Amino acid sequence: MIAWLRRLLFGRPLETARQKHERLPKFLALPVFASDAVSSVAYGPEEVLIALAVVGNAVWSLSFPIGVFIVILIGIVAISYRQTIHAYPQGGGSYTVAKENLGKWFGLVAAASLLTDYVLTVAVSIAAGIQALVALEPSLYPYRTEACVLSVAIIALANLRGLRESGTLFAPPTYLFIACLYTVVIAGLFKVFTAPRVEPIVPYEFHLPVLNAVGIFIILRAFSSGCSALTGIEAIANGIPAFKPPESRNAATTMSIMAFILGSLVLGISYLAHVYHALPGAFILEHSETLKNLPNYDVLKDQTLVAQLTEHIFGRGMFYAVTQIATMLILVLAANTAFQDFPRLSSILARDRFAPRQLANVGDRLVFSNGIIMLSLFAILLLVIFQGSTTLLIPLYAVGVFISFTLSQWGMAVRQRMLREKLWKLKSAISAVGGTITGIVAIVIATTKFLLGAWIVIIVIPMLVFAFHKINQHYRELADQLRITEAVEPKPIKSTAIVLAPGIHKGILQALEYARTLSHDCRGLYIEIDPNETPLIRDRWERFGLGIPLVILESPYRSVVGPVLDYLEEAKKERPDHVVTVVIPEFVPVKWWHKLLHNQSGFFLKWALMFRRDLVVTNVRYYLEK
Amino acid sequence: MIAWLRRLLFGRPLETARQKHERLPKFLALPVFASDAVSSVAYGPEEVLIALAVVGNAVWSLSFPIGVFIVILIGIVAISYRQTIHAYPQGGGSYTVAKENLGKWFGLVAAASLLTDYVLTVAVSIAAGIQALVALEPSLYPYRTEACVLSVAIIALANLRGLRESGTLFAPPTYLFIACLYTVVIAGLFKVFTAPRVEPIVPYEFHLPVLNAVGIFIILRAFSSGCSALTGIEAIANGIPAFKPPESRNAATTMSIMAFILGSLVLGISYLAHVYHALPGAFILEHSETLKNLPNYDVLKDQTLVAQLTEHIFGRGMFYAVTQIATMLILVLAANTAFQDFPRLSSILARDRFAPRQLANVGDRLVFSNGIIMLSLFAILLLVIFQGSTTLLIPLYAVGVFISFTLSQWGMAVRQRMLREKLWKLKSAISAVGGTITGIVAIVIATTKFLLGAWIVIIVIPMLVFAFHKINQHYRELADQLRITEAVEPKPIKSTAIVLAPGIHKGILQALEYARTLSHDCRGLYIEIDPNETPLIRDRWERFGLGIPLVILESPYRSVVGPVLDYLEEAKKERPDHVVTVVIPEFVPVKWWHKLLHNQSGFFLKWALMFRRDLVVTNVRYYLEK
Repeated sequence: MIAWLRRLLFGRPLETARQKHERLPKFLALPVFASDAVSSVAYGPEEVLIALAVVGNAVWSLSFPIGVFIVILIGIVAISYRQTIHAYPQGGGSYTVAKENLGKWFGLVAAASLLTDYVLTVAVSIAAGIQALVALEPSLYPYRTEACVLSVAIIALANLRGLRESGTLFAPPTYLFIACLYTVVIAGLFKVFTAPRVEPIVPYEFHLPVLNAVGIFIILRAFSSGCSALTGIEAIANGIPAFKPPESRNAATTMSIMAFILGSLVLGISYLAHVYHALPGAFILEHSETLKNLPNYDVLKDQTLVAQLTEHIFGRGMFYAVTQIATMLILVLAANTAFQDFPRLSSILARDRFAPRQLANVGDRLVFSNGIIMLSLFAILLLVIFQGSTTLLIPLYAVGVFISFTLSQWGMAVRQRMLREKLWKLKSAISAVGGTITGIVAIVIATTKFLLGAWIVIIVIPMLVFAFHKINQHYRELADQLRITEAVEPKPIKSTAIVLAPGIHKGILQALEYARTLSHDCRGLYIEIDPNETPLIRDRWERFGLGIPLVILESPYRSVVGPVLDYLEEAKKERPDHVVTVVIPEFVPVKWWHKLLHNQSGFFLKWALMFRRDLVVTNVRYYLEK
Repeated sequence: MIAWLRRLLFGRPLETARQKHERLPKFLALPVFASDAVSSVAYGPEEVLIALAVVGNAVWSLSFPIGVFIVILIGIVAISYRQTIHAYPQGGGSYTVAKENLGKWFGLVAAASLLTDYVLTVAVSIAAGIQALVALEPSLYPYRTEACVLSVAIIALANLRGLRESGTLFAPPTYLFIACLYTVVIAGLFKVFTAPRVEPIVPYEFHLPVLNAVGIFIILRAFSSGCSALTGIEAIANGIPAFKPPESRNAATTMSIMAFILGSLVLGISYLAHVYHALPGAFILEHSETLKNLPNYDVLKDQTLVAQLTEHIFGRGMFYAVTQIATMLILVLAANTAFQDFPRLSSILARDRFAPRQLANVGDRLVFSNGIIMLSLFAILLLVIFQGSTTLLIPLYAVGVFISFTLSQWGMAVRQRMLREKLWKLKSAISAVGGTITGIVAIVIATTKFLLGAWIVIIVIPMLVFAFHKINQHYRELADQLRITEAVEPKPIKSTAIVLAPGIHKGILQALEYARTLSHDCRGLYIEIDPNETPLIRDRWERFGLGIPLVILESPYRSVVGPVLDYLEEAKKERPDHVVTVVIPEFVPVKWWHKLLHNQSGFFLKWALMFRRDLVVTNVRYYLEK
């Protein structure tokens, strides 16, 4: 039954020999690894506008340069990771790079940051996707947490079934989203350059009573908000072994394609926002008392930046609906990237003995099942605690990614200095500049979002690092203790066998026969609860006990476990050179409820003996027929 | 810590040798065994009046003869049980009597009836007692279920601590109650015979619009309601071994004293109710539209029969309060009788192999702890389901007791016919008449209360009988299968030892050394998950493996359990005359969380091997130091 259900849910087990075939071609690898990064086009440029618009209509002249700088940053990070992909074809990304070039501790910080962020990617993306769904169908609102949990479970299941299937499953929505956004950007640009006059979305200048000056802090914060567009960009570097051979080249090419798509879309959307004077609905709603006299206020306040541009260029038709649905789908599917990365990174950590070794186990369908399950559970926990609300989850997000970017790029900078290959000065400089910038972004995000939730991540990361360290320590100590340093001289072991006999019947006879093969020093042990029964036992033992001596122990307080443990201690002391084997005879009933009809002393004894050293415990079972 | 808490709650364990001393003298046995029976004076005569009063003021002339007949019935039942006590000095009561004289099935019906009724005694008495407490302190009303559960737990604890202590604990309230009621009866009679004129409680004649004719059914129902006074009378016959020697004589004397107290109080209270024209408050409340013009209506409607008589004779003073509190206490303590009887009867059933043998285990404090715990749990279950309401529980009550009375007395009748001792005709006739009357009462109770809840008991009793039968069948079949019929010729056993080796390290080396002592045919078994590791293992095994051959099995689907089980089946087939011993090496970590860091294949293997026949499973443990 269980096996059947398991097969139905996960598919039949795959042979290890098929492992090589479970690799992705580039056109399937792209949606699997890029959905996270590309989906952030849906909120990255919008976050810049929201953060900047507090300065008033200067937003439209400032946002585009920030967008350009984000695209440059995408380029730097992508170039840095292309270098990494070639330098580390076995995968491992920031963790491996930081560990090898900056030392173990930086590596562990990178790993902890990434694992935390993967969990958040799942939680945030699913929450945002379900929020989009709820916006289309408001009656689902009361069930949004359940819908989030269900979505995580479905994606987890798809991943547990195997890698290739998830590639084919997730490709269509990703490509659809990319196609929609390119259509918007290209049509928008065409309109801008061909139309006699640009019609703005927000047709007049506005100023907020709160803030009118442009400070460097505002610009930095807007920039760092926009940097959320970079989350997920490192996915490919961790996942090189999932590519078809030649893995490195395919991965590097895919990285370039992804960076190009991401960069061009961010640039295009930012430019259109600048030209068309778009203002995201979330911002309009927040400052509704100033902005409520906007024409189209009622429509604009519910729209995202992308939605505003789409409607402005194409009107509210079929294409508008398709774009919204594609956005919703890619947000849900972005979570899938984490389902590729988390299990892979945790398996690498496990192989390096920093995480429980079960995370390196390959499951029935040749995926790291335990990592997938662990990620799902943590994401579900977050979604349940934060009730599926993106607003509450967002501040925890992106800190981890930028810590790992920083460590990875400084690692590459150090590495290039050491190896001194062709163009090492330029390459090292690119990495160092990138590392410095992403480091500043990490600090800015952590500072501006600290009280909103970033503190949780800042506490969790060192805790994880400490856990990795302790786990590693255990595995190392274990290996030291178990290592055989030189061949052992075979020496004969002498042994004593003690059969626990609550009476004398066929089951115990079988145990006695077995015990005789263990040792010539073999005894029965009987605990006397009711002294009236002892003569009968003694008599029957003499007749049937195979000549093995019977030790009878009084138990004035009617305990079985106590006297047995005492006697075993004595027996060990008596012959320190012997191995003492305790033989526990058990009869196995046919029906489960028969077990309830017997004293559980055998069970309690086994449990008590688990904590005694230098004893071998043997169960000899006698099977009942009815 | 657990041991300390256990000692605090239950006291320190008592030696088996002290068992003889844990016996009760008569003055302590009486309260322990009689509180249930005597406490029913508080509701027995009252129930007769309530059932009869529907016929109007004819109640006062009819109730006293019914009371007399109940007292005669008490006498018959008591005489019958005195005969039983002498015939069966080892105890066992109705169950033993019915089994020996009417056959196994009647015995099991008696046992099932009694066990059911003991559980109900606890539930009903506790519920009634807490209801009395709530009447004194109405603010406790919302917590009545919790109060019931707590009371059961406290009584259970007292009983788990030992028999003598519960005797001293429960004696004062019982004797106080008996003293109070005798004072009421004697003072009332004195007043009746000395005062010039009797002042009635209800000073005029009344007729209800509902019913004016006196039918035989009404009288029978009133009589059967009053028979609730007999519940608990059989307790002593079950508990003879708890008396100080000479047990039978002491028990018989105590039975007579108890029957005398019960009979005289029922007679006295019934007579006073007849003379003083008492009418229980429950009845007045139910027919308030007819009776609301009674003088003292407001006082009478809240009073029980005993309360009305007490106030009428002594006024509402100190003595009135003491009597009420004593009534409340004895109702709570009546439950204690069941705590003596249930464990004792279930231990007798267990000794006869009709109930799980754990019920015959004597606990730390020389009581049948498991029976006490079982009774408490069932009573708590009933109290929680019925929310501590006496009204809902009462209809389930007394059916069981009268079934057991009937079987017991018919059993005695049959026995006396067979043995033909002195006066056998008279004795047999008494038993037969008693058995017939109690049988009729049982049928009447079951009929009149069927829909109100008696059906539950009528379903549960056959289910219990069936369970007893199946349990007995299992124990008999078990004994047949385990019985050694003749001495076995010692013949040498040949054995094969297979060590499960996930690698080669010190823990496994230890297991190999041990396995060599088991057999000359000794092998290591390695399951290949990752073919790349195999050459290393093979190489190290050659250097360190003590010359024991290593079997390497491929596992294309990465399962460990499957290939191991297959190989063991093969090994068994290969040498059918060998015993196959599976040696599982385990290392035992120092800290609990270290366990989480290792594959649980050892655990899964042990579990899977539990279901395989003809294998001996041996754990060889290697203890880590850090």
